[in-house]
Amino acid sequence: MRVAATDLTVLAGGVGAARFLQGVCDCVDRSRITVVGNVGDDLDVHGLHVSPDLDTVLYTLTGEIDEERGWGVRGDTPRALERARSLGADAWFWLGDLDIGLHMARTEWLAAGEPLSVATERLGRALGLGLRLVPATDDPLRTMVELDAGEVDFQTYYVRRGHADAVRGLRFAGAESARPAPGVIEALAAPVVVIAPSNPLISIGPILAVPGVRRALEQRPGRAVAVSPIVAGEALRGPAADMLRTLGHDPSPVGVAALYAGLVDSLVIDERDADLAAGIRRLGIEPVVAPAIMRDAASRRALAAAALEAGGLAVAVA
Amino acid sequence: MRVAATDLTVLAGGVGAARFLQGVCDCVDRSRITVVGNVGDDLDVHGLHVSPDLDTVLYTLTGEIDEERGWGVRGDTPRALERARSLGADAWFWLGDLDIGLHMARTEWLAAGEPLSVATERLGRALGLGLRLVPATDDPLRTMVELDAGEVDFQTYYVRRGHADAVRGLRFAGAESARPAPGVIEALAAPVVVIAPSNPLISIGPILAVPGVRRALEQRPGRAVAVSPIVAGEALRGPAADMLRTLGHDPSPVGVAALYAGLVDSLVIDERDADLAAGIRRLGIEPVVAPAIMRDAASRRALAAAALEAGGLAVAVA
Repeated sequence: MRVAATDLTVLAGGVGAARFLQGVCDCVDRSRITVVGNVGDDLDVHGLHVSPDLDTVLYTLTGEIDEERGWGVRGDTPRALERARSLGADAWFWLGDLDIGLHMARTEWLAAGEPLSVATERLGRALGLGLRLVPATDDPLRTMVELDAGEVDFQTYYVRRGHADAVRGLRFAGAESARPAPGVIEALAAPVVVIAPSNPLISIGPILAVPGVRRALEQRPGRAVAVSPIVAGEALRGPAADMLRTLGHDPSPVGVAALYAGLVDSLVIDERDADLAAGIRRLGIEPVVAPAIMRDAASRRALAAAALEAGGLAVAVA
Repeated sequence: MRVAATDLTVLAGGVGAARFLQGVCDCVDRSRITVVGNVGDDLDVHGLHVSPDLDTVLYTLTGEIDEERGWGVRGDTPRALERARSLGADAWFWLGDLDIGLHMARTEWLAAGEPLSVATERLGRALGLGLRLVPATDDPLRTMVELDAGEVDFQTYYVRRGHADAVRGLRFAGAESARPAPGVIEALAAPVVVIAPSNPLISIGPILAVPGVRRALEQRPGRAVAVSPIVAGEALRGPAADMLRTLGHDPSPVGVAALYAGLVDSLVIDERDADLAAGIRRLGIEPVVAPAIMRDAASRRALAAAALEAGGLAVAVA
């Protein structure tokens, strides 16, 4: 059921990517996988440095995740957060106590001058992650979202305002001077690179905005495959479809393909979108039709297998 | 049992001061009390701004304190801290979850640009403190301790190294450019100023090091009374006696009096130190003999009453 020795890099956002990665880990030994994670959603809250997307991957792949919500640690308690609230703090970003402990550790390491990539590696090792999880960059890079009400940081848009606003523009603050974290460019030279079914604009976009990343993917020596996060005009999760629309993109796998043109060889799309294959092919991307809804472990594994096979890996699904 | 309308200011360190203040609050209505607190012990740990002395006063006077330890919140849990430790963090400073919640609130307010005095006032209001607790300064002021091993910050000396080192010197980093927090200088013009039985060097010293504070106390329009933290050559709590010794002071109430010469009119000393009265008087300070060990609510109240009476307040102890 597992493919043997091969190197694989996955570009990942948060919940959708993490679930997809569960499937990937069922197909490929973790020791061969590098995940390049999004840090555009990172925030400093109550003094703590929080990396929501990295943590979601970490929690999901170590079995700690609260499956129901898709984020946070299962069974975590909000003692500290409720205390802060009771004292008058505007504690709008949910943080459980175990979560806070992780953020405390990371924040301490960062304050001592360690790069985020080293802190992330430490956390992965401590939790038994088993694969290499690397932030796209160690430098500050923040996704800023232009709304009718003005520009806000990503979490203000997403969590605080419940991603209810129409998105008029995106800006990756700090991107121009950010450098890829150690290993990122090398990871893009893997035989297979997969872009997880994450929001192409706000999850994968910040990764591609790090100077050198897009070019490394364009000049890839291996094969690259993306998995569409849009199925039948709707996002697997979150506001991707609306956001594609308000930013002038086609809220369909064709719109996703247009964003990834030149960056991937294949795009995995759901059976319901099979009629869009020609439009995708016209963008120079080979469409691969597979059931793209991840309902359970089996469907996650099947979707991962489809993507890996499109990348040229022979995956024997159990 | 309570004295009516009078304004009273208490300069306070941590545990000893907080227990003394419990006694004061049994004698004087809280609405008339201002406490000027030490911030030399403050630290930034895991990204959180912790003000141990202010918090000890706050927790003690709101009944939240862990009486046994003298600090922290009674019944608090260390979920976040243990998590941080399990992930490899060097979590040497004990923080309970409720504690962390308070630090999260404060850190958020400070990050938003609020002065520490405003954050402290908010916390006091939220917890029903009822008296005015003001940090000596809103500016960074950190007690640095010179050991044989080199200079360390206060909490490294006190908590991390268990105040086991001989103290060779003290420095209040930032003091020269610190300004008294709003209300501090005014509070020193109260009819009665009491220096709590705190370590004169590391608890009261940082308060006096804020430019303007010492002079305001020297030029006080009212009366000032100190309570000796040294009884029969030993500190009520902590390393005060050893520290006085290694820094060349007399580890006795006379040594305390020498440090407060010109700043107070009276010094409350324990009955066992009654023979030192003449030496104290020679320093221009009137000795006041009273039982100075705070064992329980009654003895705290009696010690507070002795200090307040020395300041000219008529206190009818129940």
